[in-house]
Amino acid sequence: MPIIPARRFAIQRLRVGQSIKVIDSAGGQVIDTFAFSIPSTPAFPRYMSMTHTRSTLHKFLPSINESFLDNRRDPILTIVEDTSPGIHDVLYAACSPERYLQLGADKDHDNCAKNLYNALQQFREPSFSHVLKFLESGWMPDPLNLFMKVNINGSDLQCLNPESKAGDFITLKAEQECVVIMSACPMDLSACNGGEPSSAKFEVI
Amino acid sequence: MPIIPARRFAIQRLRVGQSIKVIDSAGGQVIDTFAFSIPSTPAFPRYMSMTHTRSTLHKFLPSINESFLDNRRDPILTIVEDTSPGIHDVLYAACSPERYLQLGADKDHDNCAKNLYNALQQFREPSFSHVLKFLESGWMPDPLNLFMKVNINGSDLQCLNPESKAGDFITLKAEQECVVIMSACPMDLSACNGGEPSSAKFEVI
Repeated sequence: MPIIPARRFAIQRLRVGQSIKVIDSAGGQVIDTFAFSIPSTPAFPRYMSMTHTRSTLHKFLPSINESFLDNRRDPILTIVEDTSPGIHDVLYAACSPERYLQLGADKDHDNCAKNLYNALQQFREPSFSHVLKFLESGWMPDPLNLFMKVNINGSDLQCLNPESKAGDFITLKAEQECVVIMSACPMDLSACNGGEPSSAKFEVI
Repeated sequence: MPIIPARRFAIQRLRVGQSIKVIDSAGGQVIDTFAFSIPSTPAFPRYMSMTHTRSTLHKFLPSINESFLDNRRDPILTIVEDTSPGIHDVLYAACSPERYLQLGADKDHDNCAKNLYNALQQFREPSFSHVLKFLESGWMPDPLNLFMKVNINGSDLQCLNPESKAGDFITLKAEQECVVIMSACPMDLSACNGGEPSSAKFEVI
């Protein structure tokens, strides 16, 4: 079964109807997940958007058999199964060099923004040639942070240890031809990954 | 005092240290607010980002004398005063043609996405020539929905009548040279604007 190496990424193209099972094999590991429609539209990609999903569904997360939407509010990935406690974050940006600098770490600390960039750099799809330029300038889609637990207490947010156990998985079905990027979050300066980033696995069904 | 016409928009350039006072003159009117740094970076604009703000501050909204951040996590607008009940939404995407179609209305219904586009089309700043192309392809920054009330109940979100009263205002100070776009939200199919979109006012200080 393919690995998402600790602190690194994996990228997988899906045809309509194919599903991807993302497995938290060690338990307590966040996977920042992104999806882009294929082919990319000429000026700007069509991408899975947390803000369009929640403001259309009027909830933070789709339920089982409901879909995440893209920035045109069309379904892109449907949750078909989830054996974890169902706690996934849609409020936090991907970790980036600026974030690690602010936390007193080095800007070259591994980060999910760089993982997304490196993944798409490997992706040999001509219609994506423009996307890297946007990422270089600081654009990022809001990630679906699988297994990440963010507690809401009034207006305050707190990132806590994940509740997912070793072997928990979520399965997402493609509603559009798309590419899915999974970044095994390298954050080791907060409770986000239980303090110790680990690898994960995935499977195409 | 300049008007933000009902269902339409206003655009204002700010120098560092200048403030903009956005006044809900009728009460209960949502103002979708966007800010972009000037000049724009070559490949992609630097913009006020709700997701970077909340995941850096660990709260939905900055407090008084705290700043909204841009997509590089640098301060762009600071809240210096707020006479409203302090309820502003940062979770909902701007209304767009796709949203009105889904609600059974016409795709040509006035919408905040179009207002942002039309505002930036009027804006005579050469470094912004690329931004319109991204907006045409469906990209939008997450707006700061001033005076909009979204109730969080577990994982469910509900858009309710605003609690702002006639004359309530919020003042935002520029931390970067920037342009601020204010869209008087034309949503008339939900409780968002109390059912009846109205005009608003603003003042540069």
